[in-house]
Amino acid sequence: MSQDIDFDRYDRVRPIRWTGDALELLDQRKLPFQVEYVRCEDSDAVADAIRALTVRGAPAIGISAAWGVVLAARGVDAADGAEAASKLEPAMQRLNAARPTAVNLAWALARMRRALDGSGSDWRERLEREAQNIADEDLAANRHMGALGAALIAPGSGVMTHCNTGSLATAGFGTALGVIRAGVALGLIGKVYAGETRPWLQGARLTSWELQQDGIAPTLVADAAAAHLMKGGAVQWVIVGADRICANGDTANKIGTYQLAIAARHHGAKFMVVAPSSTVDMDTPSGDGIEIEERDPGEMFAIGGVRTAAPDIEAWNPVFDVTPHALIDAIVTEKGVIERPDAAAMRAAFGH
Amino acid sequence: MSQDIDFDRYDRVRPIRWTGDALELLDQRKLPFQVEYVRCEDSDAVADAIRALTVRGAPAIGISAAWGVVLAARGVDAADGAEAASKLEPAMQRLNAARPTAVNLAWALARMRRALDGSGSDWRERLEREAQNIADEDLAANRHMGALGAALIAPGSGVMTHCNTGSLATAGFGTALGVIRAGVALGLIGKVYAGETRPWLQGARLTSWELQQDGIAPTLVADAAAAHLMKGGAVQWVIVGADRICANGDTANKIGTYQLAIAARHHGAKFMVVAPSSTVDMDTPSGDGIEIEERDPGEMFAIGGVRTAAPDIEAWNPVFDVTPHALIDAIVTEKGVIERPDAAAMRAAFGH
Repeated sequence: MSQDIDFDRYDRVRPIRWTGDALELLDQRKLPFQVEYVRCEDSDAVADAIRALTVRGAPAIGISAAWGVVLAARGVDAADGAEAASKLEPAMQRLNAARPTAVNLAWALARMRRALDGSGSDWRERLEREAQNIADEDLAANRHMGALGAALIAPGSGVMTHCNTGSLATAGFGTALGVIRAGVALGLIGKVYAGETRPWLQGARLTSWELQQDGIAPTLVADAAAAHLMKGGAVQWVIVGADRICANGDTANKIGTYQLAIAARHHGAKFMVVAPSSTVDMDTPSGDGIEIEERDPGEMFAIGGVRTAAPDIEAWNPVFDVTPHALIDAIVTEKGVIERPDAAAMRAAFGH
Repeated sequence: MSQDIDFDRYDRVRPIRWTGDALELLDQRKLPFQVEYVRCEDSDAVADAIRALTVRGAPAIGISAAWGVVLAARGVDAADGAEAASKLEPAMQRLNAARPTAVNLAWALARMRRALDGSGSDWRERLEREAQNIADEDLAANRHMGALGAALIAPGSGVMTHCNTGSLATAGFGTALGVIRAGVALGLIGKVYAGETRPWLQGARLTSWELQQDGIAPTLVADAAAAHLMKGGAVQWVIVGADRICANGDTANKIGTYQLAIAARHHGAKFMVVAPSSTVDMDTPSGDGIEIEERDPGEMFAIGGVRTAAPDIEAWNPVFDVTPHALIDAIVTEKGVIERPDAAAMRAAFGH
């Protein structure tokens, strides 16, 4: 089925551009109102951009950090990989500290370190090749997941997504949004609904914009309207990404995901999680072991710099929630599809 | 139990003030940032204020319109109620047209017309007395519902509400928010959560502010975070208002209510609807018969005048949804409590 998808037609947005001598990052703080790339000429500029959310999305952050190492190598004189590794370590530490909780960031830096292992005078070329590999493999994985996920969708389906899991969050094509792109490319999807995703509005600001670039017209809905939408029969699949998938299939993702899973089950709509296998954490047995980050309540009080809530009130602002595996119909990684995920099915797919 | 509640301590906000020669309306468009009353000296100013959403909430609109008729009477010379009724009709039509879909508006004007029936030269006093009665009865009904609803709440409970159903929407005290006030006054409620209620943010702007005035500190949560909150065991009751309650107990209310009801049932939290009996519509057999108003998609694209969504996208913006009676644990009106509402229980309570 994969070969039937006109990937390029539905995959025009690139958040990360390597020019050969600099890294250009699409400034996601300014989207959708300004389409502007920030040029990073050294690794500290990349670290700053990661910290400032110029680039966001775990895979996109990892790829950016890898190119950051390539930029750091410019200023380093070393006879072989071992010497380079030691000289590059401070810059890699600074990149790693830019968003210490994003697992893909540490994962990408570890790959860059391994690329230096045993390399000789070609260490510079090896680093650049590895950064390009990380980006290329991410894009290929996304396109493969797109085809795998789309194969689960019946013709004429309506789909709903949450947050932004698209090109903007990855090397391109996206994870959950990649499945939606593939489903549209194959003519399977009649209508795409995007939840606006308070408090950051990634759905309203980012998902809507990037689908638009590919000629896909999503319909924005308030997060609270999803159940009413499902009741009318408009949604056959809810398709979301993941920040962490536990050993039993429990999935941490953007706040609001869990509510969608409950509503989907209530209405007989299916629920799909799409993420690269690097998101699978077989060391965490279940969602009970995931600590949920709570952010500044202030994010709930203003939108675009405009105060929207009463002064001096309290707010609770968790960033993620956990969807139990029992509410998930399919987990899609680049390694394949796990239907009705549980501990046994996960172990069969990912071992331990 | 009602006599144990220190109502006045927890009921300080008044959206409507009758000064004897003018109607002062708390400008809800400016809340919570400016607390400002608009002074209406004639009935057309009242109609304008209703149309402009200076005053909102079905009971508050009805009360305002009744005082608008009293103001209209100033300019009318009539020997008895019949003559006054005919001379006042144009002003009443203009008031009625200010928000033609709000059932309480027409209901309050009908009461004012009936007050004129058979009255003699005292018609002016009768009108003023009737307007005062409508306001007083609304406040009394709310306080009574507050006591009835609070009696269902176990000590130490956490409660969650949606939209604004408080003093600001009524003569005072509120419906669902009145139950919460009563529960706090009786020391039964440990924590109050207010959903922010996109797209209009009534929870963030109005509910938070008015509870604050009574010394109650609510915690604001994103609409999409409610299920995650319930999963943690923080919510024993979800308490909401109603725009229409059908003959089988199905309830139309602000968009997002249905999603809360599904999540509450999933977690074993209880779900309470609080509304005056004038909201009960025994002529509509079930929620299937309710047409859901859809508003301008533009409300989804900007907040406080700041654009928040990609340009040229589509949105779906339903104002209400319907919660099936099977998801409702109790309907509270001033006539009493209906537990596990269905067609038989509703018929027993409201006849037909």
